[in-house]
Amino acid sequence: MNIAFQGTHGAYSEQAAYAYFGRNTQTVPYSTFDEVFLNVVQSTCDFGIVPVENSLAGSVHRNYDFLMRHNLYIIGEEVLRINHHLITLPNVALGDIKRVYSHWQALDQCEQTLRTLLPDAEKIQTYDTAGSVKMLLDEQRTDTAAIASRQAAELYNLPILQQSVEDDHTNYTRFVALSRHPYQALSTDLLYKTSIVFSAPNTPGALFKALAVFSLRDIDLTKIESRPLQGSPFKYLFYLDFLGDVNNDNVLHALNHLKEFALFVRVLGCYPCANDN
Amino acid sequence: MNIAFQGTHGAYSEQAAYAYFGRNTQTVPYSTFDEVFLNVVQSTCDFGIVPVENSLAGSVHRNYDFLMRHNLYIIGEEVLRINHHLITLPNVALGDIKRVYSHWQALDQCEQTLRTLLPDAEKIQTYDTAGSVKMLLDEQRTDTAAIASRQAAELYNLPILQQSVEDDHTNYTRFVALSRHPYQALSTDLLYKTSIVFSAPNTPGALFKALAVFSLRDIDLTKIESRPLQGSPFKYLFYLDFLGDVNNDNVLHALNHLKEFALFVRVLGCYPCANDN
Repeated sequence: MNIAFQGTHGAYSEQAAYAYFGRNTQTVPYSTFDEVFLNVVQSTCDFGIVPVENSLAGSVHRNYDFLMRHNLYIIGEEVLRINHHLITLPNVALGDIKRVYSHWQALDQCEQTLRTLLPDAEKIQTYDTAGSVKMLLDEQRTDTAAIASRQAAELYNLPILQQSVEDDHTNYTRFVALSRHPYQALSTDLLYKTSIVFSAPNTPGALFKALAVFSLRDIDLTKIESRPLQGSPFKYLFYLDFLGDVNNDNVLHALNHLKEFALFVRVLGCYPCANDN
Repeated sequence: MNIAFQGTHGAYSEQAAYAYFGRNTQTVPYSTFDEVFLNVVQSTCDFGIVPVENSLAGSVHRNYDFLMRHNLYIIGEEVLRINHHLITLPNVALGDIKRVYSHWQALDQCEQTLRTLLPDAEKIQTYDTAGSVKMLLDEQRTDTAAIASRQAAELYNLPILQQSVEDDHTNYTRFVALSRHPYQALSTDLLYKTSIVFSAPNTPGALFKALAVFSLRDIDLTKIESRPLQGSPFKYLFYLDFLGDVNNDNVLHALNHLKEFALFVRVLGCYPCANDN
């Protein structure tokens, strides 16, 4: 079984892949999210895994766009605690560090800590977190640190100089697992989540009516987000996650009710909830 | 009148400041959003302007966090079409370009165009778009291009080699103007918008009830977003924008109704709608 992910080995996405699919899988790195989707669509990979939401940075709209564009299904979710570490070559001390390599988002999430720890260090934005550790190693830089996961440090066999350098320790990312086939619900004991995208007409109360189809049936929403529709800046798309199984009559009725007046409704997937929900 | 913005001169935020406050103002650049808020709070600047939403990248959660933390009011909004250009030193041709400087978000938004136009160029992430033009000029690099606004090209007096290199031409950013004092509504002829943040109890139907207080009073929502609450990952904050003036009885009743059951409600500001809405 092989799993497409974006980034280089040691990336948070790869960690999510192992957490969700288990250690006994083959992970395949791609440099863009687009390639992750394409390689699952074209059957080069069995499954894919991509981030859709970070507790600090918000939704990864690009991956929602790809979910809309490609005919793949969400078959599961994995919520990963994001824990950034300061990684260096062996025998490097804080005082030696003049530059820090990492992805812009990691640098951003460690801003205050870096200001205290390394006030004069230059922050060099790189393609991804794990890749910045590889760069550090390839270039044999003793004046540079990288910010990445523990897995990246272990993979490249480099020491962690300082642990947990993120400013906010409640930083986590929600990933979804992708497949060419929808999740086949076998057990009725599990708690299921359904992710949909829909567009409502631009009339007062349209969103309220859309939510009513769920609330009137006691279906609990776990995420809602409005987003300007690409190509028509002042029309809106809505992303909605709710607890429930699309094979359940109550949920089916709600979706059919929504289709009565929404401009379009697309079910992105129905899958077992992560334990964290 | 001086206006705090994040970035360097020529930045999109500075363009938004001029568009909103007029050309006859003094803009003051700061390197972080935090400093923009602090310098308005501490009266170093009269007003501030910050991005809160991009049509491709989504909400700028960090600025919502600062709105929650600091006691400032939104007094207006400005929607700016984001138009990226490829900028070089004079007499540089496409074939000379080996590197492209820009902010990660601009590089990201031009990805496909760059792949066609400059397939072999290295993408160097910089602190901001306008700053990348300054870097190019300071370093006198004839093998490098920067991606930034027309204003940045004009400010540094450099030619635009290729116009509109963004992949999606419907790219726009919504900025809000900040003040220590709430907007004083003088005219009843204008269309007003109100931005609020609230937290609903984690019970089924709570969000539906929250929206009902607006829908039952025919108040039209223009933005809704749920967001995990910092510090308590599985509780949610909601950002809501609606059309209406907080001095209007109907809106006041809706907000009082919301306060009956929301955990907290904070009005971030009430201000005239941008024409684009």
